[in-house]
Amino acid sequence: MTIELDFTHDPKATSWVESANGHPDFPVQNLPFGCFSKDGKNPWGCVAIGDFVLDLRKLADTLDVGDTRKILHYAAQSTLNGLFRIPGGASKLRQRLFELLTDEAHRALVEPCLVPMAEVHMHLPFDIHDYTDFYTGIHHATNIGKLFRPDNPLLPNYKYVPIGYHGRSSSIRVSGVPVKRPSGQTMAPDADEPSFGPSKRLDYELEMAIWVGQGNELGEPIPIGEASSHIAGISILNDWSARDLQAWEYQPLGPFLAKNFHSTVSPWVVTMDALAPFRVAQPPRPEGDPAPLPYLLDADDQAHGALDVQMEVYISTAKMREAGDAPHKLSSGPMTAMYWTMAQLVAHHAVGGCNLQPGDLLGTGTLTSGEEGGEGSLIELSKGGKQPITLPNGETRTFLEDGDEVIMTAFAEKDGFARIGLGECRAVIVG
Amino acid sequence: MTIELDFTHDPKATSWVESANGHPDFPVQNLPFGCFSKDGKNPWGCVAIGDFVLDLRKLADTLDVGDTRKILHYAAQSTLNGLFRIPGGASKLRQRLFELLTDEAHRALVEPCLVPMAEVHMHLPFDIHDYTDFYTGIHHATNIGKLFRPDNPLLPNYKYVPIGYHGRSSSIRVSGVPVKRPSGQTMAPDADEPSFGPSKRLDYELEMAIWVGQGNELGEPIPIGEASSHIAGISILNDWSARDLQAWEYQPLGPFLAKNFHSTVSPWVVTMDALAPFRVAQPPRPEGDPAPLPYLLDADDQAHGALDVQMEVYISTAKMREAGDAPHKLSSGPMTAMYWTMAQLVAHHAVGGCNLQPGDLLGTGTLTSGEEGGEGSLIELSKGGKQPITLPNGETRTFLEDGDEVIMTAFAEKDGFARIGLGECRAVIVG
Repeated sequence: MTIELDFTHDPKATSWVESANGHPDFPVQNLPFGCFSKDGKNPWGCVAIGDFVLDLRKLADTLDVGDTRKILHYAAQSTLNGLFRIPGGASKLRQRLFELLTDEAHRALVEPCLVPMAEVHMHLPFDIHDYTDFYTGIHHATNIGKLFRPDNPLLPNYKYVPIGYHGRSSSIRVSGVPVKRPSGQTMAPDADEPSFGPSKRLDYELEMAIWVGQGNELGEPIPIGEASSHIAGISILNDWSARDLQAWEYQPLGPFLAKNFHSTVSPWVVTMDALAPFRVAQPPRPEGDPAPLPYLLDADDQAHGALDVQMEVYISTAKMREAGDAPHKLSSGPMTAMYWTMAQLVAHHAVGGCNLQPGDLLGTGTLTSGEEGGEGSLIELSKGGKQPITLPNGETRTFLEDGDEVIMTAFAEKDGFARIGLGECRAVIVG
Repeated sequence: MTIELDFTHDPKATSWVESANGHPDFPVQNLPFGCFSKDGKNPWGCVAIGDFVLDLRKLADTLDVGDTRKILHYAAQSTLNGLFRIPGGASKLRQRLFELLTDEAHRALVEPCLVPMAEVHMHLPFDIHDYTDFYTGIHHATNIGKLFRPDNPLLPNYKYVPIGYHGRSSSIRVSGVPVKRPSGQTMAPDADEPSFGPSKRLDYELEMAIWVGQGNELGEPIPIGEASSHIAGISILNDWSARDLQAWEYQPLGPFLAKNFHSTVSPWVVTMDALAPFRVAQPPRPEGDPAPLPYLLDADDQAHGALDVQMEVYISTAKMREAGDAPHKLSSGPMTAMYWTMAQLVAHHAVGGCNLQPGDLLGTGTLTSGEEGGEGSLIELSKGGKQPITLPNGETRTFLEDGDEVIMTAFAEKDGFARIGLGECRAVIVG
């Protein structure tokens, strides 16, 4: 696998959509796919370009796009599952759209297909059949492990097995949908019996979402060398967690109600094509860590399998919004905090024969950088809820309160290339 | 909630489909729904009646069924999700079909819609979006707990929380599809490092499948008193498990590859209507066990929330089949081994706001009776693989070998009512 760059990565390329040029998220070099609607109800496919979405259904009706006609038909459906089922389909379409949006000659025909982003509703990009959440953030796993198992923070399997569990797909919502605080059982440290009520330790988790493109048949594993070709792209994921419910329920079968009340994902699928300039080597494992088993080890994947993407998480409390204060940055860190590559997650998931399908969502798990200011959750920032953090307006938080909005962003930035943004993953807590 | 019996439960009722009368599984009092095809590819809805399936698409095209016309239209789709989305739809249709199949006057029109069961392929009844596996078999949980945690078999949360986890829906297959032995990481007791290879401790799990009918909106829990009305019906579930993979991977987030390579479900959705005569009181909890928390406690549910259904599991090895030997019964037990009622599982699942959807599958977890001969898995029968069991032909087993077929059946039987069968859940292991 060599990472091939093409004309779509040319940093000098500009679009006749002027807001795209120098846009922090959506220059013409990005062209992430999503699903939008004007009525909030009936979505279909689009790409983001500057301050607009390009309506792919209207484009399909407007233009003879030659050899991408069939691909465009799939992209215009109500979800992107069909588009990413076609081998190479999204790549080809992205290249064609790049041509249409950079060449002034196409402007007259294409411009009527633009809709201001401010006027549209974004929907989930895929019909997500299965959602798997991994646990690749080794610093997060260590921090959480210390809280739940002080004597045994990182279990012996962690450095061999890409630990993951099946999540709930029905409760995944797109950025912007409010999150209702869940109720459930909790066991107070000094209590004889559990009690029932709203979670008092509601938290966010800063993750990245990896979308499966091409799937595999049941019983047919995906070799590590082919795994990255099964990835459609990435988004930002907030895997909301009720820590008090989690502590009481999670043994022995893992988190359940603590996580299944809601997960929030950003609307744009930023393709692996758009991110090609930002592929980097997987950071070397610390001295003494075991090498991955052969089914997880591929030289090319080690050389190019990580992504140089930066993530940030902000909070905006109700009081801050009333006062007109800007959101406050809680932490930031790199996606390279993953102990396993994306391809290793795919290969591991399928190695026993489990079939992946287009639109399956793989969460990276909370990514904590391991440095001060790089904590991916409040439970880490507040040391298990023992040390409240203080916001600029004097408010304090150990966990989330009603009215708090959590805003995550992510981007890739590098000299010699256009900055590629992932947009926002945000939601407000309601009681 | 009083359990109302109606004309469809009359044990004296007979059908003009003669094979249905006295049929051990599919008398006219049952009429379970399923999805069949003639080509193995394009299924649609049917019900089982004796040795036949009644083709609901053809019936819809043939007959003016009056007020059930719209319901029949949904039942004729490629999955049953639409049918069970209609409040009361399946109940009404079952009553109408009962009339058509008992009254000789309808025979001439309806008979052409029958297809011999031996000539059809059965498919999954639902598009299963989310699959949750519970752990309600307290005897199983105790037996397994002893193997994984000798000092701490039943964790403190077990009697308060209906323990469950999210499973993999993509790898659920209907009865009859061969199961490929999974490979994965295992850690030998005396090893320094894990090794990779085919599972050596492949096991079945005897469970019942509970199908969700009506769903709920995200953020809107289902009260315990309404929970049973959200259940469409039940089937038999074999949640195949690779015990060696499970032991190494399951901490701290639960089973993953050990369970997601394949699950097998029987094709027929036996409705709660058909099972109404077999609803019984939830067995009282052992002295000293805590009462369920209020959100899980409903007097009617305690009085009628359990099902008097018997389950059986058989093995048929390749040698047995070659010799023409009948399958050998490994164990049997009652569905009342559930520590929680079906309604309690539904109410718990949704109490934090998680939305259930039509066609979601809830597994009961392995049901072990607590008596000799009632073990729901091989790991229990073979005492953790330490005491091989001997089959009638002299073969021994600790875990499943390639060529072994596991066959599960279940039925409800009671004086004064027709016996209601669930059919079979079977699959053979291939290497």
